Amino acid sequence: MEFDLDKAMAVLTRTPATLRTLLKDLPRDWVETNEGANTWSPYDVIGHLIHGERADWIARAKIILEHGESRPFDPFDRFAQFEESEGKTLGELLEEFAALRERNLATLREMKISAGDFEKTGQHPALGRVTLKELLATWVTHDLDHIAQIARTMANQYMTEVGPWQAYISILHDRKK
Amino acid sequence: MEFDLDKAMAVLTRTPATLRTLLKDLPRDWVETNEGANTWSPYDVIGHLIHGERADWIARAKIILEHGESRPFDPFDRFAQFEESEGKTLGELLEEFAALRERNLATLREMKISAGDFEKTGQHPALGRVTLKELLATWVTHDLDHIAQIARTMANQYMTEVGPWQAYISILHDRKK
Repeated sequence: MEFDLDKAMAVLTRTPATLRTLLKDLPRDWVETNEGANTWSPYDVIGHLIHGERADWIARAKIILEHGESRPFDPFDRFAQFEESEGKTLGELLEEFAALRERNLATLREMKISAGDFEKTGQHPALGRVTLKELLATWVTHDLDHIAQIARTMANQYMTEVGPWQAYISILHDRKK
Repeated sequence: MEFDLDKAMAVLTRTPATLRTLLKDLPRDWVETNEGANTWSPYDVIGHLIHGERADWIARAKIILEHGESRPFDPFDRFAQFEESEGKTLGELLEEFAALRERNLATLREMKISAGDFEKTGQHPALGRVTLKELLATWVTHDLDHIAQIARTMANQYMTEVGPWQAYISILHDRKK
């Protein structure tokens, strides 16, 4: 499927409500348990998504449009949420994510990006040259990746409880390595 | 995490609204595309979940409680949705799933299952002896598995559009084999 801004935004718009519906008011065991050392709980993932709204997607799109490759992106801190989420409830994080996403999608609309801008380039600190289209497509897949991660992390908690059915539930074989 | 009926039901209750929020009114490309031969689109997955509500979880729980191992479960048809969904819109399927799930959770409540029933056993046509607890835990992980599958199937459509970021988005490496 070729990248299309409206179709991409259709997914980006739905993510906060999808996560709210999946996670809000769930018993804490479901949302505060991770998959083992150096893995994230659903609570951690929402903090990571919030940091992305603040520091990643729109910030980088602006750099591409305003500076091109002359100003490389700032590196993204994959662990920022461990400090930034401190003291906040999951419900608060879900609302914060929704508000930031809404604001960022409004900004994206104001940027009036057209297909002619899709191939404009920027410099990623590790990946090198990337295009605006690739950045926006990645924003979408990043949302979907973390929705799947949350579902997997929750499912893994019943790894032994499902008994012999473990063989049939593919997600129980995808555990984070 | 040990199986607990209330905690399991907290997830089972949320699944229909989560899927409705994620999928309803999305452009058709997102919901009608699968991952290649012999894989399912999000539309197909919702039909499969509907068939599970009709033929699998509650039906099997009743067999365990009423007949134990003396009456094996009926085999589950993993392809029923290709006929049953015919002519229905995704919006209709999402509502049908929600209504069936609501009815099944009401039935589950009426069954007044207690921890003392968790180890009651039934005969699975392929897996052999299984317990009521394992059946109910599997219902939960099966929901989560299909939420993750839908997210992955959608993300895979941008496999090439993300360019070099493909290396960073783990779900793009989980493509159904």
